[in-house]
Amino acid sequence: MPYILVQVTDEGVTHEQKAKIIAGATDLMVEVLGKDPDETFVVIDEVNTDNWGRGGEMVTLRRQRQAAARRKP
Amino acid sequence: MPYILVQVTDEGVTHEQKAKIIAGATDLMVEVLGKDPDETFVVIDEVNTDNWGRGGEMVTLRRQRQAAARRKP
Amino acid sequence: MPYILVQVTDEGVTHEQKAKIIAGATDLMVEVLGKDPDETFVVIDEVNTDNWGRGGEMVTLRRQRQAAARRKP
Amino acid sequence: MPYILVQVTDEGVTHEQKAKIIAGATDLMVEVLGKDPDETFVVIDEVNTDNWGRGGEMVTLRRQRQAAARRKP
Amino acid sequence: MPYILVQVTDEGVTHEQKAKIIAGATDLMVEVLGKDPDETFVVIDEVNTDNWGRGGEMVTLRRQRQAAARRKP
Amino acid sequence: MPYILVQVTDEGVTHEQKAKIIAGATDLMVEVLGKDPDETFVVIDEVNTDNWGRGGEMVTLRRQRQAAARRKP
Repeated sequence: MPYILVQVTDEGVTHEQKAKIIAGATDLMVEVLGKDPDETFVVIDEVNTDNWGRGGEMVTLRRQRQAAARRKP
Repeated sequence: MPYILVQVTDEGVTHEQKAKIIAGATDLMVEVLGKDPDETFVVIDEVNTDNWGRGGEMVTLRRQRQAAARRKP
Repeated sequence: MPYILVQVTDEGVTHEQKAKIIAGATDLMVEVLGKDPDETFVVIDEVNTDNWGRGGEMVTLRRQRQAAARRKP
Repeated sequence: MPYILVQVTDEGVTHEQKAKIIAGATDLMVEVLGKDPDETFVVIDEVNTDNWGRGGEMVTLRRQRQAAARRKP
Repeated sequence: MPYILVQVTDEGVTHEQKAKIIAGATDLMVEVLGKDPDETFVVIDEVNTDNWGRGGEMVTLRRQRQAAARRKP
Repeated sequence: MPYILVQVTDEGVTHEQKAKIIAGATDLMVEVLGKDPDETFVVIDEVNTDNWGRGGEMVTLRRQRQAAARRKP
């Protein structure tokens, strides 16, 4: 009877990627714990990068810095 | 001091239904555990059917199949 | 396909109270949203009063103060 | 390796306030528990006032009542 | 920067099974979303069967009924 | 009306540290968002290091490796 919450930043997760996450997380419960897939819920929560922090800063700023670093020759 | 999270698919939950869920979940805490309603938080989280999986597939697909089955004579 | 998390302090919630919370929360989803009870998960999370804060203080201290106030004539 | 979820009503939390919440919650983990900020995730979840209940009623209604009370002479 | 919560009943999940869940959920984020494994947190929450309800009843009772059904010739 | 969940590994968080986390997280809501402390819940969830994964491995193993590295001359 597993419940799986997958929380990720909302950086363009596609319909196909969501389908793969749902299938993969469910398979994991079936293969490792022998759970019934029909009893397995997977919820994907997409979080705006302004609302996710790491290292004390918004992921939005982290992404800007990463992009700037890549643009440098 | 209960905190209750009600996570449901976002299939048109009305304002009135939300009010009933909040009132009902709070009453449950008061009646069963003797909690103070003012100390009881209820949070309703509406999840897109693309982001909820069961049986390894998106609820969106599940709903389409259920609708197709109903249309058949 | 609701998932309901009921988080309460671990102040002696009995087996019977847990059964009532599970039944009541499930009934609420059936009556208000027309959900299938078999598709409704209820998870009760009992939290130590040292690990729950309100008003900036541990519930443990709050309970001690409430008990002391009741003992006063 | 802390994960911190900050759930608040969506009553106009600004970009600057989000940055302060992320920085402040991360600092708290560093100062109190000696955690590495880079290992600290902070997620802010803004909840519509229709979806948050307290005292058995929607926060939306609570806010309307509070506003009406303030308008009275 | 994914955070994955895996909530399951506490029916003897072994150390090896936990390792497989952590590895599998992390791999899923790497393969499907291209995430950095070092930025992926997986938290396993084992819930007592008395504290998990489905179909309006405790999983504990459900398991007893399932076991009784298997014993019948 | 904030609800804050602080999830950390259960590596000996003391009573005093919990009190500081509760006070600090509540102060943050008061100072940044102007919230009422009495309406602010803080829940600390201590997770066994076997149940927390990062980089695809249990934190338990990570800690053992870190300790081994420190013992080396």
